[in-house]
Amino acid sequence: MKTTLAFLIALVATTGFSQEKTIQERLGYSKDTKLLIIHADDIGVSHSENMATIHSMEKGSVNSGSIMVPCPWFFEIASYAKAHPAADFGLHLTLTSEWDLYKWGPVTERSKVKGLVTDKGFLNDNNEAVHKNATAAEVETELRSQIERAKQFGIDPTHFDSHMFCAVSQPAFLSVFLKLGREYKVPVLLNHDFLKNFANIDLKKYVGKTDVVVDQLFMAFPPDYEKGMSNYYGEVFASVKPGLSCILLHASYDNEEARGVMGEHTGYGAAWRQDDFNFFTSENCKKLIDANKIKVINWREIRDKLLR
Amino acid sequence: MKTTLAFLIALVATTGFSQEKTIQERLGYSKDTKLLIIHADDIGVSHSENMATIHSMEKGSVNSGSIMVPCPWFFEIASYAKAHPAADFGLHLTLTSEWDLYKWGPVTERSKVKGLVTDKGFLNDNNEAVHKNATAAEVETELRSQIERAKQFGIDPTHFDSHMFCAVSQPAFLSVFLKLGREYKVPVLLNHDFLKNFANIDLKKYVGKTDVVVDQLFMAFPPDYEKGMSNYYGEVFASVKPGLSCILLHASYDNEEARGVMGEHTGYGAAWRQDDFNFFTSENCKKLIDANKIKVINWREIRDKLLR
Repeated sequence: MKTTLAFLIALVATTGFSQEKTIQERLGYSKDTKLLIIHADDIGVSHSENMATIHSMEKGSVNSGSIMVPCPWFFEIASYAKAHPAADFGLHLTLTSEWDLYKWGPVTERSKVKGLVTDKGFLNDNNEAVHKNATAAEVETELRSQIERAKQFGIDPTHFDSHMFCAVSQPAFLSVFLKLGREYKVPVLLNHDFLKNFANIDLKKYVGKTDVVVDQLFMAFPPDYEKGMSNYYGEVFASVKPGLSCILLHASYDNEEARGVMGEHTGYGAAWRQDDFNFFTSENCKKLIDANKIKVINWREIRDKLLR
Repeated sequence: MKTTLAFLIALVATTGFSQEKTIQERLGYSKDTKLLIIHADDIGVSHSENMATIHSMEKGSVNSGSIMVPCPWFFEIASYAKAHPAADFGLHLTLTSEWDLYKWGPVTERSKVKGLVTDKGFLNDNNEAVHKNATAAEVETELRSQIERAKQFGIDPTHFDSHMFCAVSQPAFLSVFLKLGREYKVPVLLNHDFLKNFANIDLKKYVGKTDVVVDQLFMAFPPDYEKGMSNYYGEVFASVKPGLSCILLHASYDNEEARGVMGEHTGYGAAWRQDDFNFFTSENCKKLIDANKIKVINWREIRDKLLR
C-alpha cells in the first residue's frame, strides 16, 4: 500500500504537475528567479586559456566551464579539475580543430574514425567538413572516447556541450549528443532558439519536459565584440529573464602563445579572449549581476538536483 | 675506358686514401679547419621554442636545428621549414615526453607501439622506462612514422638526432637509428666519447670510416648553467679543435607558456633556454666564433657532400 502510494506520487510528479513547472521551480527556486550560468568554453586548448579561465573562476564571476579533451593542454586542466573537485567542469566535446597552425587530432585511433580526420591526421577545420565526411557512428565513437579519457584523468563532468556547436549542428549528431548525456546522467547544453537559428532543428521533437533546456543562451558574436564587451555584457545582464540562462565566453590572456594559436583571426582571437577575461574578472561584472537580481547557478547543482 | 678510369678513381676514393682522411678533409676543408655546427634542439615542443629558435637562426648564430614531430607545435615549424627550404632542419626523433603536465603521444597509432606509451597514452617520461617497456621493433615503427610524417608536411630532413639521446641509449635502439639514417641518406648525430660515457657503447663496433661522426660534442649540463652560459660557451668556443664539432643548445623565450611547459624544472627549464637564446643571439657569440677561427657548417652541407 505504502509502495503503491509512493509510486502514484512519483507518477504524478513526473507526468502531471511537474510538466507545468518552470526549470527554476524544478530546481527549487521561485518562478521569478533569474538563474544564470557564466560559462567559459575551450579550456585545455592552451596554457593561456587554462590560466585565464582558472583565474576567472577563482577570482572572477565565471562559475562553470568545459574542457576540450583532445587538446594539448588537457592534462594540465584535468589535473587542476581533479585537485579541485568542487569546481564546475564539463566537457566541451570536440569534433573540429579550427586554427591554422596549431591543431589536434581525435582521441580515438585515427583508423577507427577516418571521417573525422584530415589527411594530416587532424580533426576537420569546420562543421561542414564534419557533416560531409563523418558518420554519426564515428561521432559517437569519438565523443565516447573523449568522455572516457576525461574520466580516466579524474574528471567527473558536470555537463556536456560542444565545441563550435558541432555536436548539435545536425539531427544525427544531436541524437548522439542527447544519448550520451542521458547515459552519463549529465545535462547537455540545449536551447530552442539557438538550435532553430543555427541548425534549423526543432528541439521539441528531441526533448521532453523533464530534460534540461536553457531558456536564454548568450554568446558574443563579432558585431557584439565591435561595440565593446562591457557594453555587450551590460545589455546581456539587463536582458536576462526569469528562467535558466547561460552566457558562453572564452577567457585567455592575450600573450605570445594565444596569438600563436589564433594568429590573425579576430573572431574569438587572443584580444577578444583577453577582453572576455577582463570583463568577467571586473567589479563591474559583479555589480551587474547584483543590480539585475541575478542568481548564479552552475551545472553541478542542475545535474545533481535533476539527473542524479 | 673513360668509364673504367672513373670507376677506379671512385673505388680508390671510397676504399683507399679516403679512409685516412679527416672528416674536414672529406668535406673539402684543410686538416686544420675547425668546423662547428651550432644546433638548436627541441623545435616544435612549444610556440615559444619555435619563435625563439627561428629568431636565433635568422638573426643569431644558430645554423641548424631539429624538430620533434609528435609535439603540439610541430605543424607551425613544419610550415616554416617548408617555406624556408634553405634553412637547416633535421628531426629530433622522439621516444619520450618528459614534462609533468604537458605531454605528447606517439605518431603511430598507440595500439601498434604499446611499449612506447603509458596507460594515459603519452610517451614514457624517461629513457629507462623506454628500455624497460619498448622493443627495438616498436622504436623503429615509431621513428619511421615520425620521418614519414615530417616528409608529408614538406620537411626534407638534413639529419637525425634523438630527444634525450633515447635513440642512442642502448645498442638495439642505436642500430635502428643508424639503419634509418642510412636508409634516408642523412647523417645521424654520433660521437665516440658521448656514447661511451652516456650508454657505455663502443661506437667503433657500429660505424665505418665512411660514416659521419662528430669529433667533439658540446652541451651544457646543470653545473655549466650555474656558472653562467656566457662563461660556459666562451670555454666551449676556445676548446673547439680542428675537426667536426657540434654544440647542442635549447632556445626558448622565458614566457608564460614556457614556464607552463617546464614548470619548476631548472634543468633545461624556461630560464635556461632564455639564457641560451640570449647567448646565441649576442654579438659576443659572433665575436667568439671569429676570434677562435671557427668555420660554421650545417648538416645540409655535410649530407649533400658525403651522403647524396
